[in-house]
Amino acid sequence: MSDVRRELRVELGERSYPILIGTGLLGHYDLTPWVMGDRVMVVTNETVAPLYRDRLDACFPGKQVDHVVLPDGEAYKDQETLTRVYDALLEKRHTRRTTVVALGGGVIGDMAGFAAACYQRGVPFIQVPTTLLSQVDSSVGGKTGINHPLGKNMIGAFHQPEAVLIDTDTLTTLPEREVPAGLAEVIKYGLIREPEFLAWLEEHVEALLSLSPDALAEAIYRSCACKAGVVAVDEREGGLRAILNLGHTFGHAIETHTGYGSWLHGEAVGLGMLMAADLSCRMGLINEIERERVRRLLQRAHLPARPPSDMTPDDFLRRMAVDKKNVDGRMRLVIMRQLGEAFVTDEVEPENLRATLTHFCESA
Amino acid sequence: MSDVRRELRVELGERSYPILIGTGLLGHYDLTPWVMGDRVMVVTNETVAPLYRDRLDACFPGKQVDHVVLPDGEAYKDQETLTRVYDALLEKRHTRRTTVVALGGGVIGDMAGFAAACYQRGVPFIQVPTTLLSQVDSSVGGKTGINHPLGKNMIGAFHQPEAVLIDTDTLTTLPEREVPAGLAEVIKYGLIREPEFLAWLEEHVEALLSLSPDALAEAIYRSCACKAGVVAVDEREGGLRAILNLGHTFGHAIETHTGYGSWLHGEAVGLGMLMAADLSCRMGLINEIERERVRRLLQRAHLPARPPSDMTPDDFLRRMAVDKKNVDGRMRLVIMRQLGEAFVTDEVEPENLRATLTHFCESA
Repeated sequence: MSDVRRELRVELGERSYPILIGTGLLGHYDLTPWVMGDRVMVVTNETVAPLYRDRLDACFPGKQVDHVVLPDGEAYKDQETLTRVYDALLEKRHTRRTTVVALGGGVIGDMAGFAAACYQRGVPFIQVPTTLLSQVDSSVGGKTGINHPLGKNMIGAFHQPEAVLIDTDTLTTLPEREVPAGLAEVIKYGLIREPEFLAWLEEHVEALLSLSPDALAEAIYRSCACKAGVVAVDEREGGLRAILNLGHTFGHAIETHTGYGSWLHGEAVGLGMLMAADLSCRMGLINEIERERVRRLLQRAHLPARPPSDMTPDDFLRRMAVDKKNVDGRMRLVIMRQLGEAFVTDEVEPENLRATLTHFCESA
Repeated sequence: MSDVRRELRVELGERSYPILIGTGLLGHYDLTPWVMGDRVMVVTNETVAPLYRDRLDACFPGKQVDHVVLPDGEAYKDQETLTRVYDALLEKRHTRRTTVVALGGGVIGDMAGFAAACYQRGVPFIQVPTTLLSQVDSSVGGKTGINHPLGKNMIGAFHQPEAVLIDTDTLTTLPEREVPAGLAEVIKYGLIREPEFLAWLEEHVEALLSLSPDALAEAIYRSCACKAGVVAVDEREGGLRAILNLGHTFGHAIETHTGYGSWLHGEAVGLGMLMAADLSCRMGLINEIERERVRRLLQRAHLPARPPSDMTPDDFLRRMAVDKKNVDGRMRLVIMRQLGEAFVTDEVEPENLRATLTHFCESA
């Protein structure tokens, strides 16, 4: 049963595009209106390919569809794996009129998007995100890229898709930890500027965990709409857009420390948001009741409350020092003025930051 | 003596930038108005660094200047060498407020520009081209990128500089073949849409070969202005811009066949333009007198008239089949309707193309 339940148009002038959200779309929805030439290169991974590749092919009737199947995992979001996409495109002689299609989670979306941004200096691409996290995060914003041994997402480009197709049926085959990890980013939108959505989430977190199609379509739609609202104001990340990184500076430190892949990105961000709430509380911006509300919602979403047991406050500080948001050596962090209103500051007192880090590391 | 002889503004809306052309600029001209943050990363090579690095540093008073020195040559315009630029930026903890500066020829400009396009999803860059070819070609258009074993410039991005500084004094230290190679691209502008400039070049080719500062400033200015006129109409290479590739499809085939670096890019393009003129003549578009005018000017500019002796027509055809201009399998070529008017076509009769290839390969 093919059913588009919600449709969102991301407005970016001549680079505007639709996000189509529903059930039963893979295998039935015709994506050819967004394909300029005769050929498509699907980029996917070893886990997703056997589940959805054939159904995706059916979305491109009349087109010649090639595939490149990458190993699965954040550990492979690197130059070497990216090169395999270029090799496949060139070996099959794809021209600049090809369309690259990302079928998979955030890692596949980031790599396929970056390959599309750079192949012959830019070809179109379509995103088919298959994890909750990538559906609510990578669908909007045009960020693509790979990791570098010295930092996450350090090499990349801004490249907007032609269309995003979100089939929430794909969430039924996700590993158990992935839905909570995606919910972390959904909750983030509530925390940064949607207090009403935050209240809605407090009522629907169990429905989302049990994959109710209506609840999922609503949560994904509102998350994408929130992100689109931020990105429309600030496409290239000069200002407002930085609030989308709530929890990410702490989270990246955890991911780098543990090696990419052992903590899921959303798990690290979930804990990072709790740390940001704690820091906001220590700075006198939110009160302890609000901090507890954040902790409780993240707990109900099955997200971790403690960093890895071997991680020290200095481990955090060293990793956080290379964050992209930093300006001329000053550390910049996203914190909350109240629940539903985040902002960026470079005026966090080192004592408060250390107190938060010590509190969480000692609890581990 | 620091002397800006000509200044051109490339108009691209909010990405407009100046090209400053003169003598004695390195060591004296203040480039800090085009540097946003406190830090600069100069990307250069082993040949250029000892000649001009210190003088370039003096153009950034008060800024912290780091350097990364790459091996010299088109053979190093690859992913591995590009990675060294990322490594240097990350090891020295450059943030997204750094400015990347390219000091060198086209290879350095393409790689430094691509690194700037991708580092943290894009940082500003400044070009200081030190070869005639890069001064008249890379200064305008924003093309950056690297080669892939299966094709030239297959991976890249469009990224506009903040400013371009052209000190024609740098041409005095160029190897002997480099000035003719650069003149090939200068002549190209005359051939594609500036018949008056073509006549000017027929009068000044010897002055240019002897590095007259006034003739150089004029030729560089007119070349950049011509290219800027084309790019302003067609920034992302949808249509008109393809005429800038006159001679390049043949030329790339030669470069790929011989391995990058044995023929200079300009030498290959020079011969490629002669082959395009021959093809245009066989197609009845230009006459034999015009073809001879092209041959004579290229000869006076000391450019090669014959392909490598081991290269066959089939070698050309196979290499030309992967060109980026091709659309859905059809070969597209730039040819001339008359001297000073080039256009793109996918309607070259295979017999005419083969006749041109056979003619040149048999002459070798």
